[in-house]
Amino acid sequence: MAITLGPNRYGKAEIRLVRVDRNGPTHELRDLTVSVALAGDLAGTHLSGDNTGVLPTDSQKNTVYAFAAVHRLHQIEDFGLALARHFVDSQPAIERSRISIEEHRWDRMGPHSFVHSAGETRTAVVTADASGSWVVSGLTDLSLLNTTGSEFRGYVKDPYTTLPETQDRILATAVTARWRHAGTKGDWHESYLDIRRQLLAAFADTYSKSLQQTLYAMGRRVLAHRPDIAEIRLSLPNKHHFLVDLTPFGLPNDGEVFLAADRPYGLIEGTVQRDDAPPAGLAWW
Amino acid sequence: MAITLGPNRYGKAEIRLVRVDRNGPTHELRDLTVSVALAGDLAGTHLSGDNTGVLPTDSQKNTVYAFAAVHRLHQIEDFGLALARHFVDSQPAIERSRISIEEHRWDRMGPHSFVHSAGETRTAVVTADASGSWVVSGLTDLSLLNTTGSEFRGYVKDPYTTLPETQDRILATAVTARWRHAGTKGDWHESYLDIRRQLLAAFADTYSKSLQQTLYAMGRRVLAHRPDIAEIRLSLPNKHHFLVDLTPFGLPNDGEVFLAADRPYGLIEGTVQRDDAPPAGLAWW
Amino acid sequence: MAITLGPNRYGKAEIRLVRVDRNGPTHELRDLTVSVALAGDLAGTHLSGDNTGVLPTDSQKNTVYAFAAVHRLHQIEDFGLALARHFVDSQPAIERSRISIEEHRWDRMGPHSFVHSAGETRTAVVTADASGSWVVSGLTDLSLLNTTGSEFRGYVKDPYTTLPETQDRILATAVTARWRHAGTKGDWHESYLDIRRQLLAAFADTYSKSLQQTLYAMGRRVLAHRPDIAEIRLSLPNKHHFLVDLTPFGLPNDGEVFLAADRPYGLIEGTVQRDDAPPAGLAWW
Amino acid sequence: MAITLGPNRYGKAEIRLVRVDRNGPTHELRDLTVSVALAGDLAGTHLSGDNTGVLPTDSQKNTVYAFAAVHRLHQIEDFGLALARHFVDSQPAIERSRISIEEHRWDRMGPHSFVHSAGETRTAVVTADASGSWVVSGLTDLSLLNTTGSEFRGYVKDPYTTLPETQDRILATAVTARWRHAGTKGDWHESYLDIRRQLLAAFADTYSKSLQQTLYAMGRRVLAHRPDIAEIRLSLPNKHHFLVDLTPFGLPNDGEVFLAADRPYGLIEGTVQRDDAPPAGLAWW
Repeated sequence: MAITLGPNRYGKAEIRLVRVDRNGPTHELRDLTVSVALAGDLAGTHLSGDNTGVLPTDSQKNTVYAFAAVHRLHQIEDFGLALARHFVDSQPAIERSRISIEEHRWDRMGPHSFVHSAGETRTAVVTADASGSWVVSGLTDLSLLNTTGSEFRGYVKDPYTTLPETQDRILATAVTARWRHAGTKGDWHESYLDIRRQLLAAFADTYSKSLQQTLYAMGRRVLAHRPDIAEIRLSLPNKHHFLVDLTPFGLPNDGEVFLAADRPYGLIEGTVQRDDAPPAGLAWW
Repeated sequence: MAITLGPNRYGKAEIRLVRVDRNGPTHELRDLTVSVALAGDLAGTHLSGDNTGVLPTDSQKNTVYAFAAVHRLHQIEDFGLALARHFVDSQPAIERSRISIEEHRWDRMGPHSFVHSAGETRTAVVTADASGSWVVSGLTDLSLLNTTGSEFRGYVKDPYTTLPETQDRILATAVTARWRHAGTKGDWHESYLDIRRQLLAAFADTYSKSLQQTLYAMGRRVLAHRPDIAEIRLSLPNKHHFLVDLTPFGLPNDGEVFLAADRPYGLIEGTVQRDDAPPAGLAWW
Repeated sequence: MAITLGPNRYGKAEIRLVRVDRNGPTHELRDLTVSVALAGDLAGTHLSGDNTGVLPTDSQKNTVYAFAAVHRLHQIEDFGLALARHFVDSQPAIERSRISIEEHRWDRMGPHSFVHSAGETRTAVVTADASGSWVVSGLTDLSLLNTTGSEFRGYVKDPYTTLPETQDRILATAVTARWRHAGTKGDWHESYLDIRRQLLAAFADTYSKSLQQTLYAMGRRVLAHRPDIAEIRLSLPNKHHFLVDLTPFGLPNDGEVFLAADRPYGLIEGTVQRDDAPPAGLAWW
Repeated sequence: MAITLGPNRYGKAEIRLVRVDRNGPTHELRDLTVSVALAGDLAGTHLSGDNTGVLPTDSQKNTVYAFAAVHRLHQIEDFGLALARHFVDSQPAIERSRISIEEHRWDRMGPHSFVHSAGETRTAVVTADASGSWVVSGLTDLSLLNTTGSEFRGYVKDPYTTLPETQDRILATAVTARWRHAGTKGDWHESYLDIRRQLLAAFADTYSKSLQQTLYAMGRRVLAHRPDIAEIRLSLPNKHHFLVDLTPFGLPNDGEVFLAADRPYGLIEGTVQRDDAPPAGLAWW
C-alpha cells in the first residue's frame, strides 16, 4: 500500500474586475468576479515544493486584468474562452483550466452613470483542455414567487408525516440555473435573455403540483426553445411561506398573511437533458 | 454611589411578513421585515424578574401579523404608525415605541407571479410616545457608480500622505438614506419615488470634487424639492476602484481596467437639514 | 428658511492590519480591523468641493499602518488612544476623532504558528477632542446558553398574547457588551479578561425570570467588581429554542429536542451605570 | 431526439436541531444543522406532478427531530448512519440518501451552561443505498497561520508574472477537510480529535515551499497515522498577507506590519489517498 497524490487543482479566486469602455461620450460598464482553476502535472510542488511547473496565482490575476484591457468583455463567455485557452495553450504543465465568471448587473441612468440592479447574477463557466473547450452559462439568485396556482397533495404518508395536503399555497424559490451549450460559438447575450425569459414564463405559467414538476417544466421549456442547449441543471430551494393562524384573534386568513421562513427549506435539484446532446466532456469539472 | 439601571428597551426583531392582497384576479404582494422596540417602566423585570409590565415579544409578533390582516400595508409608513401607536396607547407600562420596517421589492411578471428586484431596500422607522409620532423613511443598498466626472485634489498632505491627486476617477457608493418627514400624513409612496429620483439625479449630475460634495448635493436636492422633508441623513461608503497598472505587460490603461476593492473603504456620513424644521423629537430614537 | 449642512464625519473603515512581533524565537501576533472617523470644520468640501481641510482617508489608512510599526499593539485601547489623539492634535480642521478596533483572536500552537479562535471578538472605541479622550472597551458575538434555570411567567396577557407561561426553557443569547472606562489609563487586557469572566458567571449563575433580569445581573456584576468602569451597555438577542412537539410520533419530549430559530428573535438592550460616574463626554459618539 | 429528466434529488436543508441530554445534574448539549437529500424513482412528480413516491421534506424534518429524541447524538456519524439507512430502507421509491450534518461546538462553563466556541465546524456526510453506507467526516473554517517558515520561489515566470520571489512570508489559510472512512464503524470522536491534531501539527511543522506542499503534508500525515482513513480531500484558500511599504514614512518593515487581504485569494484543492483503499462508492455523491 502507498499514500499518493490524487486529483488536485489550484488558482486565483474572486478577482474583482470593473471594465469601462470609453469609446465615445456614452460609457459602457462591465463588473465581473473572475476565478481561475488550473490542473496538470503538479506533483512536484505537492511532493517536494518544486515549483517548476507552477504559474503563480498572482500571474493568473494579472492575466485576467491584461486580457480585460484587450478583449472588451462584450460577452463573458468569450472572455472565459480566451482565458481558458490561454492557460492551457501557453503553460506546458497545465492540462486543464476552468474560468468562472459572475457578472454583476448595472443599469444605465446617464451617459456615464449607472445604478446596480441586484436581482440575479449572470454566470459563465468555461473549461478547456488540449482537446477542446466547453461553455456553461447560467444565473443565480433569481427569486420568483407565485401567490397561487400551486398545490401539494397525494404524497407519501409515513409515520413521521404530519403535513396537511394543500390545494393553494405560495410557491417561492431562488433559481440557480446552469445550461451547457452544445458548441463554443454563439450570441451568448441573446441566449441568456431568451433562456431567462423561458424560465420566468415556465415558472409563472405552470400550475404546480410539486416544485419538482415546476423544475422540470422550466428545464423542458428552455430545451424546447433552444436547440443550442445540450442540458440544463436547476437547483430550486423551496422557500416556505407558512399561513399565520389568526383565529386566536378572531380574524380570518384566507391566504393573505404569511410567515416567510428562513430555515429549513426544501431543496430540489434536477437536470433536464437532450438525449442526442454531445458529451459533456469537462463542462462540469 | 450606587449602581442603577439606565436606558433600556426590548422587542421582537426581524419578523418576516408576506402579505397577499387577493381582491380580484390580479394579486398584490408585500414582503416586509418588521422590528418592534418598546421602552417604559420596565425596572421590575430588570431588577427582580417581575414581568407585570412586560408584553411578551411573542405577543408583539402576533400583533404585527394580526394588524397586517386588517391594514393591507399599502404604505409601510402607515402600517408603522398604526403599530407604533397601538403599543403606546394600549400598554400602560410602555411609554415609547419604535417600529422599523424593511420592504423587499417584487416586480410583477403575471397576475399572481412576481420576480424579486433586489436593488435597494425601502425602509421606514416610526416612533411614538404620548405626545405624538414621528416618521423617518429611507432606503439602503442603492449602489451607484459614475465612470467619470469625479476628481480628488487640493487635500491636506501630511507626512502619511502618499495618494496622488486625480482629475478623473470612478466614483461608486452604496447609498443609505433616511429622511425625516415634517408631518405624519402624506403619500409616502409618491415621496419615496420622488426622493429616490432626486438622489439618483444629484449623484449623476454633480461634477464631484469629493464624495462629501456629492453627499451634500444629494441631500440639498431632496430638501429643495420636498418642503415636507425636515432633514435627510446620508451614509455613503466610498467604494474604491483602483486603476490596474498594466505597464509591465506593455498595455495602456486610460481609465478602463479597474480593481474593485472590498476593504478598507471610505465612509462619508452627513446630515442636510432645513433650519426651520420642526424638532426631531423621538424620530431618531 | 434655509437648507444647511448638519452633523457630519468621514474616515476610512475596516482597515485590515496584522502585526507580527518577531523579537526572539517566539513570535507574537495581533490581528485587527481598524476604522477611523473624523469631524471638524469640513463645510468647505461639502459645500464647494474645497478639500483644504480634508486629510484623505488613504492617509488615515497609512497612519494606522505606520503607527502599528512603532506602537506594537500590546493593548488595542492604547493603540486607539495614540491614533485618536494624533488626528485631533495634528490636523487643524479636525476637532473630533473616533478609532474603532476589532481584535480577532488567535491561539498559539507553536513558536510561530497560530489557530484562529473565533468565539467572541474583542472591541475598543476611543474618541478624542481638544478636551480629552474616552475609552470604551467591549466584545461582540459571545454566544451563551443555559439548558435550564430560566422561566418566563407573570407577563402581560393582551388580546394578542398566545404564549404559554414556562417554568423551564433554554436561554440563549449572543452578547454584545460595551463598557466605558472611568479613565484613560489601565491594564486593559486584565480588565477585559475579568469583565468577560464576570459576564459569563452572571449569565450562568442567575436563575432567570426574564432575559432583562439576566442582562441587569450581568451589568451589575461587572460594575460591582470594577470600580474603574463607569457604565456598561448590553445588547442581548433572545435566541429562541422551541421545544419540538413529538407527540404525533408517540415520543415524549421532556426538554430534550429543540428547534433553534433564526428569525424573529427577541432583542433586549439596556445600560447599567454608576450614579457617580464621570460624564460620558464623546464616549458614545 | 427527445428531452428527458436526468439526475435529480430533493430533500430538506438546514434543519436546526439542539439536543439536551438531561440524565443527571450535568447536562450535555449538541447543536446541529442537518440536511437530507434523497433520490430514486421520482419521474412521476417531475413529469406529471404525481407525488405517489414523494416523502414530503416536512416529514424528513420530523424524522430528524424524532430520531434525535431516541438516538442521543453522541456521535454525528452514527446519527447520520441511522437517518441515511432509514430513508433508503423504509421508502420504496428512495434508492439513495445523503445526510449532511454540521456540529456547532459549545464548551462547558457550568453544569448546564455553555459558551459557543466558534472556531471550526465539525462535519459529517453519510450516504446510503441498498448495497451499503459510506461515511465522510470533516471540518470547515479551521483558520491557521504561520508567521514564518514559508517561502515561494522557483515558479514559472511568464509575460504576466510580476510577483517577486520571497524567502519569508506569512502563510495563512482556512482549512476545509473531508476524510473518507474505510468502514462504517469507529470511534468517530476519537478519530476527529486525532485528525484535527495531525492537521495542525503538519501545518505548523512543515517548512513550506508552496501551499500545495503544505496541503500534501497535511493529508499525508493524516493517512500515515490513520489506517482507517481511505482518503482525505483538502481545500485551502491562500489568505494573502501583504507586507505594507512603510518606506515613505521612513520606517523599516522587517516582516512585522501586514495588510490582510479579502479578495482575490489563492485556492488550492487536492486529494491524498491510499492506493489500496476500498472504492468510494456513493461517498462523494
